Amino acid sequence: MTRERLYLFDTTLRDGQQTQGVDFSLADKQRIAAALDALGVDYIEGGWPGANPTDSDFFRAAPKTRATFTAFGMTKRAGRSAANDEVLAEVVNAGTPAVCLVGKTHDYHVTKALGITLEENLENITASIAHVRAQGREALFDCEHFFDGLRANRAYALQAAKAAYDAGARWVVLCDTNGGALPHDVRAGVKAAIEAGIPGDHLAIHTHDDTGNAVANSLVAVAAGARQIQGTLNGLGERCGNANLVSLIPTLMLKEPFASQFEIGVDEEALRHLTQTSRMLDDILNRVPNAAAPYVGASAFTHKAGLHASAILKDPATYEHIAPDAVGNKRFVPMSNQAGQSNLRERLADAGLKVEKGDPRLGRILDEIKTLEDRGYAYDSASASFELVARRLLGQLPRLFDVERYKVTVERRQNARGEMITVSEAMVKVKIGTETFMSVSESMDTEGNDQGPVNALSRALAKDLGPYQSFIEDIDLVDFKVRITNGGTEAVTRVLIDSQDRDGNLWSTVGVSANIVDASFQALLDAFNWKLLRDGAQPA
Amino acid sequence: MTRERLYLFDTTLRDGQQTQGVDFSLADKQRIAAALDALGVDYIEGGWPGANPTDSDFFRAAPKTRATFTAFGMTKRAGRSAANDEVLAEVVNAGTPAVCLVGKTHDYHVTKALGITLEENLENITASIAHVRAQGREALFDCEHFFDGLRANRAYALQAAKAAYDAGARWVVLCDTNGGALPHDVRAGVKAAIEAGIPGDHLAIHTHDDTGNAVANSLVAVAAGARQIQGTLNGLGERCGNANLVSLIPTLMLKEPFASQFEIGVDEEALRHLTQTSRMLDDILNRVPNAAAPYVGASAFTHKAGLHASAILKDPATYEHIAPDAVGNKRFVPMSNQAGQSNLRERLADAGLKVEKGDPRLGRILDEIKTLEDRGYAYDSASASFELVARRLLGQLPRLFDVERYKVTVERRQNARGEMITVSEAMVKVKIGTETFMSVSESMDTEGNDQGPVNALSRALAKDLGPYQSFIEDIDLVDFKVRITNGGTEAVTRVLIDSQDRDGNLWSTVGVSANIVDASFQALLDAFNWKLLRDGAQPA
Repeated sequence: MTRERLYLFDTTLRDGQQTQGVDFSLADKQRIAAALDALGVDYIEGGWPGANPTDSDFFRAAPKTRATFTAFGMTKRAGRSAANDEVLAEVVNAGTPAVCLVGKTHDYHVTKALGITLEENLENITASIAHVRAQGREALFDCEHFFDGLRANRAYALQAAKAAYDAGARWVVLCDTNGGALPHDVRAGVKAAIEAGIPGDHLAIHTHDDTGNAVANSLVAVAAGARQIQGTLNGLGERCGNANLVSLIPTLMLKEPFASQFEIGVDEEALRHLTQTSRMLDDILNRVPNAAAPYVGASAFTHKAGLHASAILKDPATYEHIAPDAVGNKRFVPMSNQAGQSNLRERLADAGLKVEKGDPRLGRILDEIKTLEDRGYAYDSASASFELVARRLLGQLPRLFDVERYKVTVERRQNARGEMITVSEAMVKVKIGTETFMSVSESMDTEGNDQGPVNALSRALAKDLGPYQSFIEDIDLVDFKVRITNGGTEAVTRVLIDSQDRDGNLWSTVGVSANIVDASFQALLDAFNWKLLRDGAQPA
Repeated sequence: MTRERLYLFDTTLRDGQQTQGVDFSLADKQRIAAALDALGVDYIEGGWPGANPTDSDFFRAAPKTRATFTAFGMTKRAGRSAANDEVLAEVVNAGTPAVCLVGKTHDYHVTKALGITLEENLENITASIAHVRAQGREALFDCEHFFDGLRANRAYALQAAKAAYDAGARWVVLCDTNGGALPHDVRAGVKAAIEAGIPGDHLAIHTHDDTGNAVANSLVAVAAGARQIQGTLNGLGERCGNANLVSLIPTLMLKEPFASQFEIGVDEEALRHLTQTSRMLDDILNRVPNAAAPYVGASAFTHKAGLHASAILKDPATYEHIAPDAVGNKRFVPMSNQAGQSNLRERLADAGLKVEKGDPRLGRILDEIKTLEDRGYAYDSASASFELVARRLLGQLPRLFDVERYKVTVERRQNARGEMITVSEAMVKVKIGTETFMSVSESMDTEGNDQGPVNALSRALAKDLGPYQSFIEDIDLVDFKVRITNGGTEAVTRVLIDSQDRDGNLWSTVGVSANIVDASFQALLDAFNWKLLRDGAQPA
């Protein structure tokens, strides 16, 4: 069976730029364009030439892409010709193979926001699209407020959309500008456009997530006949964001009836890099990746419920709708108070600890984990601390060193030049076998890095660990999370620490105490102990 | 026209607990149950009695709710009677008015995961539901993997669902356990169940967001005839989460055809607190609220595009599908235009600071807030710190006291009895007018309260503030939140402190630094200063 071609139009660099808090640099735009091209979208909308200096610079040295590079702008204003509208001119002069122009299709917006007649607006659409075509470019017309317009003045909305098609627009984009359309509205809108004479393979859908339906609205539009989907990576975009292409692409490629019916420009190899592509964007934007993101989130294949975890061990397909590696993601079975014994055995096996089914120590480990979680510990993400607890109960935790005492001081005072500075100082006294090691470390708030007591303690501990020194020299504290939680009836502080070694291995540990420094120190000690054990340190 | 009743079933405390990284304490569960009850959901599923100590404790002292309080469990196992299954007994013995039991409807899971015959499974369903009914409880049957089951063995999936209905289940819950169903699958599944003889007003829908369609799948199920929606606050839940009730509720109440067709238990007043309810949950979990969340996100009514922002000034309805205050949210038009300034004036008026329209100091305050937020400060919730910044730029911030220096020490060591103890000690030196005050405070980890450095600093500061002593004696530090965030290009620590006085007034302050103790101390100082100003302290 021949599959029909379905086109993907990415607007991460234009609508995605309108995300609150997102502010792409020129270099960001170039990196993202390259990633989009590698992914295999059909169109890359780069921005609005002339709207701001970054966009103008970006188009001036436009990236060479396999995808059709597209400039965004608006239809000409009334009372002048398309050739004499300087806003439109800047867009066309960017020289992109395709140009997408937004224009009004909702009668109220024509008369209220633009203050022109309905006829003038139709002329603006026709003349602008014809102008783009006359320059030998592919034209797209973005029907602003199409679905609201259809409700307000059905005949006019369709007339405006059709005018763009008749003037030569390759794509007429049905745009849910304020994000208020629900799936049944979108279905009806696409059907109305087709009935009005615009063929489905000239119809695109552009949705926003204001009701949480952007993805579904895109799918319903395709089912109703549209053949281009507009969206963004990770659902960036104005307000609640655009349709998330990272969610849509796997659905279109892996799930029925879409997989059999349509072909898109993304291949299986690119799909296997989808998680990486999504994380790359977060990385550029310095955003925390959404753990719950469909397909690519860190939790998307995490099986926390005990019932699920035990079935997953028998057959992953029991609780996974697709194989995680198809999208470059991974399965994870966390340890938590939801878990059963099979969940536990899987987790122990991950840590290289083989324990037979029915071993009574499994029950003891579960009980200990539950008790500790009741006291405020959390082992879902703190895998290294979990492993240490399990090793202790399995009798596989050699005692490598003891901390006899520590002391940490934070002082805020004037320095010699009369400036206020903050200094942290830490002392740690460690016993290894019969030997004692004492180390101090000091830091001031001049370098911009974490200058707090925990960092000072970490550095003091790392300064001299006697025979273990070579094992711990490359430990880097990369993240530190604090929350106040309940340990029994009291409020306690839980600290999660992520550590990394020079090979890029990451491990997480947890500490709990009524004292934040003490909680942090526990997590630090776990981080050091885990590294020593993993690298095969032996008791002195 | 009479509207049909549509029921909301909340599973935040059960399925939501299976979110990776979420670990409710007993107190968390109690607070969330109260918030859900105030919201107006019809059912609150509290957890699985017997599955873990927290859930058992929670059901032991079950909250009194207007909503039907529900326990979750699974159908009895084969080879024993319902009365003799101890797992089921723990669930039933929790004594809740309703019990929801999950069971298999997918033939493969019956034979593979349970290892029993299809007939045994039907008997388990029938006997378990009948047992719950015989105890005088309302029964719900959760059809695990219903949509996959329907595809694999249509007759058996429907037979299993119908068996529960025939045994007296008030609701048969069509569950998309692995989240793989798309809207057309859900529509077909609901119709199949109705055709098999289960009336729509006995059908519930339970979806997961693994393809980004959980909300749409819930809506499509209602359109197809189901009359109960299961979901969670903020879309918590296993893997990618459950259907987000916070997104669904406004759609059901405000958008057609749902608003005219259905009545739900949430009233307009509760809807106006929806944003607050959503943020409260994030607050309990110390999660960063999702800015892009439909309806309640901080960006949901943020108009960043220039075209949109100017039209919004003429008529908000041009780019908003609903009025933000209907859901307790606010419109936000970023910076340096008239709308930004009027927002600011409103905020200042809230703090009792009257500033005329057009006052150039408004622009200076906006710039300063933006600069500080770029450095990691957050003023959305830290209103008291915001007020202090504004007062400083308005020349209305008297200098009451200066901290010349402080020093805090945390030490872990053996006490005289050879036990390891942690001691925090703080010293603060304050200058008031020409006088200097020095105070120290010490604490040990014996009382279970926060014994950390911040508390020690707070107590030292409160010990002697000279002429201001009477103003600050009743300050109580009630909450303390820490987040690593970005200040420019560096990771910094942001501390939010909530303080309270003896009249129950609550105020929030923020501090930012590379040093957690320093960030905390800034927030503490703001808290003290704000209290002094509010109570009319005058410079010495």
